[in-house]
Amino acid sequence: MRADLNCDLGESFGSYTIGNDEEILPLVSSVNIACGFHAGDPSVMRRTVGQALANHTAIGAHPGFPDLQGFGRRALAISAQEAYDIVLYQIGALDGFVRSEGGALHHVKPHGALYNMAAADASLAGAIAKAIYTYDSSLILYGLSGSELIKAGQDIGLKTASEVFADRTYQNNGALTPRSQSNALIKDDQTAIDQVKKMITEQKVISTDGEEISLTADTVCIHGDGAHALEFAKKIRKELQESGIQIKTM
Amino acid sequence: MRADLNCDLGESFGSYTIGNDEEILPLVSSVNIACGFHAGDPSVMRRTVGQALANHTAIGAHPGFPDLQGFGRRALAISAQEAYDIVLYQIGALDGFVRSEGGALHHVKPHGALYNMAAADASLAGAIAKAIYTYDSSLILYGLSGSELIKAGQDIGLKTASEVFADRTYQNNGALTPRSQSNALIKDDQTAIDQVKKMITEQKVISTDGEEISLTADTVCIHGDGAHALEFAKKIRKELQESGIQIKTM
Amino acid sequence: MRADLNCDLGESFGSYTIGNDEEILPLVSSVNIACGFHAGDPSVMRRTVGQALANHTAIGAHPGFPDLQGFGRRALAISAQEAYDIVLYQIGALDGFVRSEGGALHHVKPHGALYNMAAADASLAGAIAKAIYTYDSSLILYGLSGSELIKAGQDIGLKTASEVFADRTYQNNGALTPRSQSNALIKDDQTAIDQVKKMITEQKVISTDGEEISLTADTVCIHGDGAHALEFAKKIRKELQESGIQIKTM
Amino acid sequence: MRADLNCDLGESFGSYTIGNDEEILPLVSSVNIACGFHAGDPSVMRRTVGQALANHTAIGAHPGFPDLQGFGRRALAISAQEAYDIVLYQIGALDGFVRSEGGALHHVKPHGALYNMAAADASLAGAIAKAIYTYDSSLILYGLSGSELIKAGQDIGLKTASEVFADRTYQNNGALTPRSQSNALIKDDQTAIDQVKKMITEQKVISTDGEEISLTADTVCIHGDGAHALEFAKKIRKELQESGIQIKTM
Repeated sequence: MRADLNCDLGESFGSYTIGNDEEILPLVSSVNIACGFHAGDPSVMRRTVGQALANHTAIGAHPGFPDLQGFGRRALAISAQEAYDIVLYQIGALDGFVRSEGGALHHVKPHGALYNMAAADASLAGAIAKAIYTYDSSLILYGLSGSELIKAGQDIGLKTASEVFADRTYQNNGALTPRSQSNALIKDDQTAIDQVKKMITEQKVISTDGEEISLTADTVCIHGDGAHALEFAKKIRKELQESGIQIKTM
Repeated sequence: MRADLNCDLGESFGSYTIGNDEEILPLVSSVNIACGFHAGDPSVMRRTVGQALANHTAIGAHPGFPDLQGFGRRALAISAQEAYDIVLYQIGALDGFVRSEGGALHHVKPHGALYNMAAADASLAGAIAKAIYTYDSSLILYGLSGSELIKAGQDIGLKTASEVFADRTYQNNGALTPRSQSNALIKDDQTAIDQVKKMITEQKVISTDGEEISLTADTVCIHGDGAHALEFAKKIRKELQESGIQIKTM
Repeated sequence: MRADLNCDLGESFGSYTIGNDEEILPLVSSVNIACGFHAGDPSVMRRTVGQALANHTAIGAHPGFPDLQGFGRRALAISAQEAYDIVLYQIGALDGFVRSEGGALHHVKPHGALYNMAAADASLAGAIAKAIYTYDSSLILYGLSGSELIKAGQDIGLKTASEVFADRTYQNNGALTPRSQSNALIKDDQTAIDQVKKMITEQKVISTDGEEISLTADTVCIHGDGAHALEFAKKIRKELQESGIQIKTM
Repeated sequence: MRADLNCDLGESFGSYTIGNDEEILPLVSSVNIACGFHAGDPSVMRRTVGQALANHTAIGAHPGFPDLQGFGRRALAISAQEAYDIVLYQIGALDGFVRSEGGALHHVKPHGALYNMAAADASLAGAIAKAIYTYDSSLILYGLSGSELIKAGQDIGLKTASEVFADRTYQNNGALTPRSQSNALIKDDQTAIDQVKKMITEQKVISTDGEEISLTADTVCIHGDGAHALEFAKKIRKELQESGIQIKTM
């Protein structure tokens, strides 16, 4: 039994620091490194790639919208062609650092609003999948479990990693409960860890209505920012390992 | 006998258009494509790469300072490490498009103030050469003939292309006459073309003092912007060919 | 009888030029000057303000989304508070040039996607109206005739100018026919001019269904980019004047 | 006896936080608020202006180079006209928030590399002074004591505030010891505070050569970032007050 823990990394910019990159790195099996559009800059990217390689952690490109001020979290109405172009640009830029540091790019996970929009919009999802496939057909596409993005990746012939969340609840149709609803978040660590264990070992989750539903759980998103994030990462890592689940990328 | 004519390309941005890319492309043997920092955007880069490949023109990355407003022409006091990082980033980004369109990157030519600063600053020159070499040691470095940048490229083991200018005069020490001086520019087309012919065939140029001096002339910079630029490109191309010089990249 | 012809101006950026600012200026009675977010830069803003003052044309701020690559035409999901902040910032920045050149700011017209979103979204419209009112309650708000933005301006106590379009058709409910429909645009100059004359003199328009409907027409948007734009501006100006309509701002 | 303690504020950007703005505010008598070019964004600016007004602290605009990644600390070779334009733009943008929140702008202090370049370059200094004077001739110009910027301000008719540094040593000619020299910084808090006391009460400082030299000391720059900065601000404030010096802006 195997689980991939992934975390967003390299989100600092110039004089601005975000995240506990060095502390979170040993706790996860794959990282998604910002590519200079919604976060990160060329110097941060080089350093972060170096840290990840030193930790033998799988490296993914984490392309986002060109919106540093909004941290890539504000939906931007771009065309499918523009999505293809900005994703390809960012993958190339990050991969330049990965290859020059002696590593190999492992996956691509869109960030923030681009991730969310691509989960629901088949055209955008197709453009992103095509950019990744065209760049390197052996890259793995990380996307929301059950999303249009995963579907688009499979359609074009990419390996995909279906992402699940420890701290989010699920609805009967397998979708995340929208954050606008009061029961969207799981605040108790143990409940979150138990949900992850069930998702990994049974590929099932209990919905907010109490129904047991099926989903694909290849990789678990771990937050890297804040003191509690580190603590939770240690806890979930320990519990998964004690349950005989190996923390390992795909 | 062979001469490379190179031209900066892909300098449009979003709704803003600069240059006559489609008209100039058939007239030159290599192009330097902007990488989104001083000019160009991901969509422009993809389209420009496609046009260059359709014309079988050698493609170079044209990295510059992150200064769209100044078009990369304003000196920016960056560290050698920052120069390494922004050059590597931009090469990777452009190469992503080149490879995904089925081509291969041929060379790298720094742009504007970065080009000028690297011509005189050995530390900056070394950082740029290292970024190119680390990314792909088979790439050719285009730089000002006789500059620190060419020296740095040779020192690290890169093939280099020494660039000369048709419309600029030279001093006794082989350096370009500074633009601040009244005799810096050659305004007569025929004088400019004759200078290029001498530089290509004899690797010599007559200085502003009337002395014949030696220089290395591998590639000639042709401007792509403006009606006269196109006319001049046609004229120099024709005259060089009539003199038995083949227009061909290295 | 009076009509205001307005035009977007100052959309150049750094080395990039858009528009025929000097030619269009004498033909219109008010201009909307880009403020450095979707177009324009500080130097372009100063020069454009100077030109407008020399032509005695009413000057408006033309705030847009921080998206130069998309020219402010791509919807960006910002909060009402963010809208308030970016509009206030841009008004202040432009007004600094207007006042330092000895003029007085006359109006504010949101640009592109911000204009369109504020036409339909009451919360966004309210935030924009509040930013303008808080900055200077004597400024006139230019917005789409019949829109939420005009309503928000009136609610807060601003003078408003309801904008109509010469080259767009209208639906029975007074809304513009969406560009996605084949009959959205009026391509014949005379038809466009006749529509404007009817809108100005009768405050009425014939919808695509042939019905005569009422609307408020205070100001007419004239395009400034392209050779035909100039020609059309001259034509409509001439015909309106010949009909006894004075071209004059509010 | 009176001393002005000033501090840079509002340097956060989007999701990125820098500084302890709320803690430092009660300790200083004037603040310099970033204007969105080297740091700050419209939302940060509005909030910071609100905080400063709530603390009855004098508000200055803190214009810098358009270089968020370099935090405005990298020299950029702009023309005097460009300096005029970017300073005017940023003052207007900040003043929009100050006036809309019911306050009045008090001073302008250029930031980082712009401050340093204007200290030595009379042409740049003149352009900046002219931008401030043209915008509002009652604003106070903060600049390095003894610099070209102070001279330019006085020449055009601005009130000026000569800035001194607590933690920097001075040379015989009154200039700061360059950071490249080992004795540039004063690391002992008490030594720094004693230097400030002498500068405020006697308008004199002991140079690194042990000579007593004269200088103008109107305002003292206090850092706001880091735990020690807060501690030092409290200490210097307390000691100055105990020496009978009032902490008050000009």
